[in-house]
Amino acid sequence: MPQPDRNAPYLLGHDIGGTKLAVVIADWNGNILHKVRRPTEAGRGPEAVVASLVDMSREVMARASLATADVAGVGVSCGGPLDTETGVVYAPPNLPGWDEVPLKAWLENALSLPAFVENDANAGALAEWSFGAGRDFRHMVYMTMSTGIGGGIILDGRLYRGPNDTAGEVGHMTIVRDGPACGCGKRGCLESLCSGPSIARRAREKARGTPGSLMVDLSGGGLAAITAETVMAAARKDDPCAREIVDETARYMATGLGNVVNVLNPEIIVIGTILVKAGDLLLEPIRNYLRNETWSRVYDTVQVVPAGLGDAVGDLAAIAVIRQAAQAEGSM
Amino acid sequence: MPQPDRNAPYLLGHDIGGTKLAVVIADWNGNILHKVRRPTEAGRGPEAVVASLVDMSREVMARASLATADVAGVGVSCGGPLDTETGVVYAPPNLPGWDEVPLKAWLENALSLPAFVENDANAGALAEWSFGAGRDFRHMVYMTMSTGIGGGIILDGRLYRGPNDTAGEVGHMTIVRDGPACGCGKRGCLESLCSGPSIARRAREKARGTPGSLMVDLSGGGLAAITAETVMAAARKDDPCAREIVDETARYMATGLGNVVNVLNPEIIVIGTILVKAGDLLLEPIRNYLRNETWSRVYDTVQVVPAGLGDAVGDLAAIAVIRQAAQAEGSM
Repeated sequence: MPQPDRNAPYLLGHDIGGTKLAVVIADWNGNILHKVRRPTEAGRGPEAVVASLVDMSREVMARASLATADVAGVGVSCGGPLDTETGVVYAPPNLPGWDEVPLKAWLENALSLPAFVENDANAGALAEWSFGAGRDFRHMVYMTMSTGIGGGIILDGRLYRGPNDTAGEVGHMTIVRDGPACGCGKRGCLESLCSGPSIARRAREKARGTPGSLMVDLSGGGLAAITAETVMAAARKDDPCAREIVDETARYMATGLGNVVNVLNPEIIVIGTILVKAGDLLLEPIRNYLRNETWSRVYDTVQVVPAGLGDAVGDLAAIAVIRQAAQAEGSM
Repeated sequence: MPQPDRNAPYLLGHDIGGTKLAVVIADWNGNILHKVRRPTEAGRGPEAVVASLVDMSREVMARASLATADVAGVGVSCGGPLDTETGVVYAPPNLPGWDEVPLKAWLENALSLPAFVENDANAGALAEWSFGAGRDFRHMVYMTMSTGIGGGIILDGRLYRGPNDTAGEVGHMTIVRDGPACGCGKRGCLESLCSGPSIARRAREKARGTPGSLMVDLSGGGLAAITAETVMAAARKDDPCAREIVDETARYMATGLGNVVNVLNPEIIVIGTILVKAGDLLLEPIRNYLRNETWSRVYDTVQVVPAGLGDAVGDLAAIAVIRQAAQAEGSM
């Protein structure tokens, strides 16, 4: 398969989520011309899902009146694990039944365009670095902070993947040895403390022992229905129990960021979803606690900011993947 | 100052320690022709120490009958913090009174050769990667494990320093939140659990509560004189108390290595000093515990090995610094 044609003016992006597919066509600056969405319905099997992606690609190209020659290639953001060299996807948790799917090969054959596959955390890192809050930084760490905590690392102006495409798994650093059980099988991972479900779990535990917390009223379904959103809403109304959970979350996050900073010394850490929605509550305390986690020279250098792309991150993640593939090709 | 002359056949290396100075002359393959040593006597002040280094450089060059034109440049391994671009050293803990010493400039002026300064952990990483256990690996993490736990990171075939030259501070990852106090001011850092003095501290605490431990007999000075070496010696004689400390050390190390592996996905982790001296006791349990700290695909890829250079690491660290500087220059 040929390399991306850097003279072609447009890029295709495929965002493969567990519940929805999105296909966009954009220019090199990330301006999106057209977008189509469909449900993933992963249960149909990978062949059917890829057939949908191919259909949707033809649809956005037709809407923009583009031929194959106008498109440099296809970037794909997909749940990992996957192999970026071969473009094979290995059983992502959000795509049941996808085992050893040769996604790159199938898309290249069907669309006659070069395709590049990246896991969604790395693709998100590329998007924030190419178009979002990490623009113009040479050393950036991107962290998702939602259902799980994932990450992607830009070092010396390049995505660092490692030999297994698993670098950047910052959510599975142990910070509290023998701490709460994590979905990964370990204990005390950052994800087991600061993901959305983990924040909710800590909040339910605290509310159970603290009668009268506003979180129970706001959840709409009692103690069991408390979510991370409930915590933030109650904290904004000064519920002491929720404020404590927020403070604890900031302290755990600062410990995790301290580890990232001490190992990687990045210039900027960009954090998605929860920090975007609750930056008013979390950002300042995270920064304050981080001061104690590293050397002042390092603390003074590193910025911690919410992600800049918001809901557009998925679309631009896929575009950033193909943009980066084309540029890396040119520079190597 | 000119760049290193890659046609010159020899390299000068300066290893600046808190108690001793070493100057070596070597070829590009790390074969050392001559070496001279002197005490550092840091109390003399940095000017006097640099004058010694200059003297010693002239001495090794004279012994090898070399002129300045035969030497590509000077590599310096020195305690950090320091700035590799300017070559200024900022108050290393082991060199009291060295504040803002323009080491690079002083050496370049005195020797009429380009000089490159690197902190000792990064220089050690370069040495193990150029000449030791990390040869031919593309992604390597080097960890010192002695009085402190430092580190250096080779990613995509290059030393990664970060904007503050502080990347690789793996010893100051928090792994036990609210754990033992660390010299850095934090709590529960890997260094506060697995450095030599930390192993000794844990051993003394355990021996105090476990009458009859062989460690007390072997220390030569009772409970207070137990060192990490005592622990290893007693463990080799099957002292249960010492075996427990060794096992606990392996578990803490595996947690720390798990964090390194999850964030950096290296191909190899090379560990110095204590793992070199007590690899027979520590290596197998570290590997076994590490299995639980990451994904099997990642575990299967990563090697954990003792450093390969032993006592030669300091000399070769300095040589690796100038070798790397010359090669990086050529490739950029």
